[in-house]
Amino acid sequence: MIKNITSAANPLIKDIIKLKNDNALRKEKNLIIIEGEDLITLAYEHHLLDVVITSATPLYQDIDTYVVPPFILEKISSNKSTPQYMGIAHYAQVREIKGKRLIYLDNIQDPGNLGTILRTALAFSYDGLIINNRGVSPYNEKFIQASKGAIFGLPIYFEDDLSKIKNLGYQIVVTALKGAKDYREVSSNLAPMVLVLGNEGQGVQEKNMLLADWIIKIPMGNIDSLNVAIAGGILMNYFRD
Amino acid sequence: MIKNITSAANPLIKDIIKLKNDNALRKEKNLIIIEGEDLITLAYEHHLLDVVITSATPLYQDIDTYVVPPFILEKISSNKSTPQYMGIAHYAQVREIKGKRLIYLDNIQDPGNLGTILRTALAFSYDGLIINNRGVSPYNEKFIQASKGAIFGLPIYFEDDLSKIKNLGYQIVVTALKGAKDYREVSSNLAPMVLVLGNEGQGVQEKNMLLADWIIKIPMGNIDSLNVAIAGGILMNYFRD
Repeated sequence: MIKNITSAANPLIKDIIKLKNDNALRKEKNLIIIEGEDLITLAYEHHLLDVVITSATPLYQDIDTYVVPPFILEKISSNKSTPQYMGIAHYAQVREIKGKRLIYLDNIQDPGNLGTILRTALAFSYDGLIINNRGVSPYNEKFIQASKGAIFGLPIYFEDDLSKIKNLGYQIVVTALKGAKDYREVSSNLAPMVLVLGNEGQGVQEKNMLLADWIIKIPMGNIDSLNVAIAGGILMNYFRD
Repeated sequence: MIKNITSAANPLIKDIIKLKNDNALRKEKNLIIIEGEDLITLAYEHHLLDVVITSATPLYQDIDTYVVPPFILEKISSNKSTPQYMGIAHYAQVREIKGKRLIYLDNIQDPGNLGTILRTALAFSYDGLIINNRGVSPYNEKFIQASKGAIFGLPIYFEDDLSKIKNLGYQIVVTALKGAKDYREVSSNLAPMVLVLGNEGQGVQEKNMLLADWIIKIPMGNIDSLNVAIAGGILMNYFRD
């Protein structure tokens, strides 16, 4: 259905603006707002696109499309330069945790870090990202921006309890600064495994440390910590086929 | 000298606010605005601290300190939560490029990436960061925030012409997606060397590609590029002692 809308007071537009301003609502409804033609094309190809809002030519006959003046897109956009195409999409709901190598994020706070980690996990053929419930939300628009389209590339699971994942047979690899061995002492083709990356300030929670089969570190010279996305990148590049 | 200032109209405060709002002026004067006690302590220890502005107890008798009400700090701060301590510091001016391993940044645009790369370079004992004149400025406050105190840990050089560095005897290692070999085919203790990291969208400039002794890539699975700071992290972790 293609619909011309000229007023920001239109109930459909008001609903979208409400959705844009309410992260909890997006999470509850499993909806994300995406910007730009590339991301919209990607969502469409993954059958995850629900609505297109555009000031240009509609892209798909089989997707609900609202053709609007640019000022309405500006109201919805989180970017400085308003795109011609925006959309509403959803994440694939994958309930059963599976795959050879997964990432578990223990309270990652920064949406940029979360996006970069997702993008890296996709690049190195990881099978999914597990997010616990106290970190930054994958419904956050800065995360979506930082992930550069990787959001539709691999499953995002919500699971707080790491022991459930360990009970599925996964070996738990945890990063720490103290009491840890050089990561190169662990076999690079360890599988099935979950690499646990900790909060930017506090690291991995004590209860998750206790579940570790391997506690590892990246040897450093001059400073006592790396950005979590960098540490994750080095380790994902190591633990793979 | 410790001075109590209560008005934002005080010429000293007006000068600081002007400095805060003018990146070009900061660059011209080689001055940066730093926030928080940790960064101020670090600048002091490196003899790079010029002025402290605080709503709390002065820290150093030998540093010019302005004691001000919190609203003045709020005017100067770029953070959401205003710190009790702010300062003006400068970069060490190191003219002669030296050291075993350096990073050359070819038009890096994102201050977060620049900060993370600097922090990683320090962690892996690199000897300095060379910045060309078209990328994001190291006088940018988002860069200073992202570098988490690494700014005083290693020299930052300004040099656009990579051939000058090559002529000093450095081997030039460039990252690219096409026509590149797996980085693990190059000796990890290559030295002296410069690792060239390219712009987020365009990669390394053609003229710098032509100077390369080694063109390398990080083999990937599902996606055709990594965030530049992640690629840099993996390569800095590889090329070191």
